Amino acid sequence: MDNFTFYSPTFFVFGKKTEEESGARVRQFGGNKVLIHYGGGSVVKSGLLDRVKKSLQAEGLGFVELGGVEPNPKSSLVYKGIELARKEKVDFLLAIGGGSVIDSAKGIALGVVYDGDFWDFYEGKGVTQALPIGVVLTIAASGSEGSGDSVVTHEKGMYKRCADGDILRPKFAIMNPEITCTLPAYQTASGITDIMAHCMERLFSKTKDCEVTDRLLEAIMLTMIKEGRRVMADPQNYEGRANIMWAGTVAHNNITGVGRQQDWGTHHMENELSTTYGCSHGAGLAILFPAWMKYVYKLDVPRFVEFAVRVWGCQMNFENPEATALEGIEAFKNFVKSLGMPTTISEIGGKEADIPALAKSMFHNSPNHGSFLKLNEDIVQEIYRLAL
Amino acid sequence: MDNFTFYSPTFFVFGKKTEEESGARVRQFGGNKVLIHYGGGSVVKSGLLDRVKKSLQAEGLGFVELGGVEPNPKSSLVYKGIELARKEKVDFLLAIGGGSVIDSAKGIALGVVYDGDFWDFYEGKGVTQALPIGVVLTIAASGSEGSGDSVVTHEKGMYKRCADGDILRPKFAIMNPEITCTLPAYQTASGITDIMAHCMERLFSKTKDCEVTDRLLEAIMLTMIKEGRRVMADPQNYEGRANIMWAGTVAHNNITGVGRQQDWGTHHMENELSTTYGCSHGAGLAILFPAWMKYVYKLDVPRFVEFAVRVWGCQMNFENPEATALEGIEAFKNFVKSLGMPTTISEIGGKEADIPALAKSMFHNSPNHGSFLKLNEDIVQEIYRLAL
Repeated sequence: MDNFTFYSPTFFVFGKKTEEESGARVRQFGGNKVLIHYGGGSVVKSGLLDRVKKSLQAEGLGFVELGGVEPNPKSSLVYKGIELARKEKVDFLLAIGGGSVIDSAKGIALGVVYDGDFWDFYEGKGVTQALPIGVVLTIAASGSEGSGDSVVTHEKGMYKRCADGDILRPKFAIMNPEITCTLPAYQTASGITDIMAHCMERLFSKTKDCEVTDRLLEAIMLTMIKEGRRVMADPQNYEGRANIMWAGTVAHNNITGVGRQQDWGTHHMENELSTTYGCSHGAGLAILFPAWMKYVYKLDVPRFVEFAVRVWGCQMNFENPEATALEGIEAFKNFVKSLGMPTTISEIGGKEADIPALAKSMFHNSPNHGSFLKLNEDIVQEIYRLAL
Repeated sequence: MDNFTFYSPTFFVFGKKTEEESGARVRQFGGNKVLIHYGGGSVVKSGLLDRVKKSLQAEGLGFVELGGVEPNPKSSLVYKGIELARKEKVDFLLAIGGGSVIDSAKGIALGVVYDGDFWDFYEGKGVTQALPIGVVLTIAASGSEGSGDSVVTHEKGMYKRCADGDILRPKFAIMNPEITCTLPAYQTASGITDIMAHCMERLFSKTKDCEVTDRLLEAIMLTMIKEGRRVMADPQNYEGRANIMWAGTVAHNNITGVGRQQDWGTHHMENELSTTYGCSHGAGLAILFPAWMKYVYKLDVPRFVEFAVRVWGCQMNFENPEATALEGIEAFKNFVKSLGMPTTISEIGGKEADIPALAKSMFHNSPNHGSFLKLNEDIVQEIYRLAL
C-alpha cells in the first residue's frame, strides 16, 4: 500500500425531504449570497427548484439563478457563471443537479476567485482556492457531490478535461433518493454504469496488497449489481435508489481508492465518445470498459480472476484461470447490456473511420493516460476498434 | 435505510514516516501551543515521542507534555490535563497513542472550554465545543482517530461512559503502520477483535435494506480475517499492518454505519469486564460477542446466516439455516481464539458470583443498552452466564 492522504470534509445530509434543509446548510457553511446553478426542465418541473428557493428564503439568504447546464457541461456557461457571480457578489455556489451541474459549478467556483482564465485549472494548473460549493443531488452517478474533481468541455476544439483539488469538495451534499425515483431508465442505467466504472478504474491497479480497498470496491460493485437490477425493474423503489445513491458517493469520494495507483484511462477514452457522439458518460463507459479489459487482462490474470469470482460470482476454473478472467469481463458486459446500455461504438453512431481523430483528440495537450497500462494513440485506436 | 447525516472532516495522513509531519499538520489546523498527551513506555522508548517533538520544534510550536494514560483511561488524568492545558494556555491537543490516549485527550479537549465538570458530557450532556485534537496513532483498534467518540472511566464507582459529537473528530490523524509492527501479540489481537466488533455492532441491526453498508461492513471483516491471520503469523508484515490500520479507521468513522440502527449492547457489557478485570477491551469483546450472538440470533436468523456465509465462507445449509447461523457464530469464536484471545469470563478471572454486580454497574445512570435486542439487567446476566 502506498502512502496517502485522505480528506473528505463534505457534510452529507441523506434521506427523504432533505432538500428542505438547503438554506440551513448554506448558512451553516457561511454563505450569504448564493448562485443557484442547474440544468433545465426536470428540476423546474418537479418543483425541486422552488422547494430549494423557499428554503433559502426562509433563511433570509439572497440568491441569483443560472440554469441551462447541458450534459457534458461546456466552458461557455462557466464563463457566464463567473461573470454573473462577480457582478452579483455571490459568495456561495449551490448546484442542483447531477455531475454536469456540479462540475460546472466547480468551474465557476474556481474562476470567480482567479484573475486568469478558469480553464488553466483544466490544463494542469494547481487548484488552491475556490468559492464554497453546496449540492442538492438529483442523480446517483458521478460522485461529484463528494469529490474534488470537475470535468468540463472546452468548446474551442471540444476537449473534455478535468481539474481537481480538495478545495473543490462540496461543503455539503443534500441527497434525497426520492428525487431519483423519476429518472428515465437510460439515465438511471448510465449512472449505475458510471458508479461501477469508478470502482473499476481503482480496482485494476498495479499496486499490490491493498486488500482493504479491494474489498471496499467489491462491496460497492456487489451493491450496484443487486440494487441496479432492482431499480431497473422497479424504478420507484426507494430502498434501491437509496443504496445506489450512497454507493455512488462512497465509490468516488476516494475512501475506496487510497494507497493505490488508479488507472482512469477508460474514462479518458470515454470523454471522446460522449463529446463526439453526445452519448451519456455511462453509455460510453459501458462500451469501452469491456474492450479495455480484454486488451489488458493478460497483464495481471489473477486480478481479473479475482474480479470475476468475487464480484460476478463466477466459478473458478482452476485449470484455466484465463477462462474465468474472460468470464468476468463478459459478465460485466452482460450486466450493462441488461440495463439497456449500448456495448458497441456503432450503436451510438460511431464508425471505424472516426477512430484516429478520437485518439488524437484525447492526447491534445494531455499526454498521460492510464497506469495499469500506459496508453498511447496506437493502443487507444486498438481499444476503440475492439469496441466497434 | 433511515435518514442520516455523515461528516468526517479528519485529514488522514497515512504511511511510512508520516509522524515527521506532526508539526506541519498542527500548524495547518491552527495550533500554536500544544499539549502532547501519551501513555507510557513504548512511545518514549521507541523514540516516537522525540520524533514528534522534533517535528513540532521545527515548526516553532510550543508544547507541554502529559504522559501516563493507562488502558481504560481514567477521569483523574483528564482533570489533571484540563488544569495543565488551562495553566499553559494550550490551544491544541496532540494524542500520541491508541484509543485510550485519544479518548483521554478528547476528555481534556471538552473540559478545557467548559465551565462545569467535563464528566457531564459522559453522562449525556450534548457536546458542542472542544479544543482541536490531532492524533499520531500507535495501534489499530479503537477507530478513535477518525471518530467523534470518547470512552473514559470515572474513578468514583469505576463507571466507563461515552461522550460523542462530531466536534470530537480529530482534525488530523497521522497513521504510520510501521509503528504497529512492534506491538505485543496480545495487543495486536485485541485490536483486531475490536475492529471486527465495531463492524458487528453495526451489522446486527433491525434496519432492513442497507445493502451498501452491509457490504462495506463485510469488506472490513473479510480484510481483518485475512490480514489478521497474516500479522499474527508475521508481526513485521508492513502490508498486513497497513491494511488493518486503514480498515480500523473505516470500520469506525461510521461511513459503514450510516442509515441504520446500531446495537452497541455488547460494547457496553464489555466495558464492565475491562473495568473490573483489567482485560483489554478487545479481549472482553472476544468473550462476549459469541455469547450475545447465541442469545439473540433467533430474532433474525437470515441476518446471521448472511454473516456466516458472506463473512465466514460457511456453506449454506438450505434445510437447516439455523445450523448455518450457529456455524458463523462458532467461526467468529474460533477466529478470535486463534488470535490468542480469551473466550470465557473465567479465563480473565471472573466468576459467576460477580455477575449481578457487573450487570448492576452497567445500568448505573445509564438505562438504555442495545437496539437489536433491548437489554435489561436480567438479560445481561444471562448473557454473562453464557460467556462464563
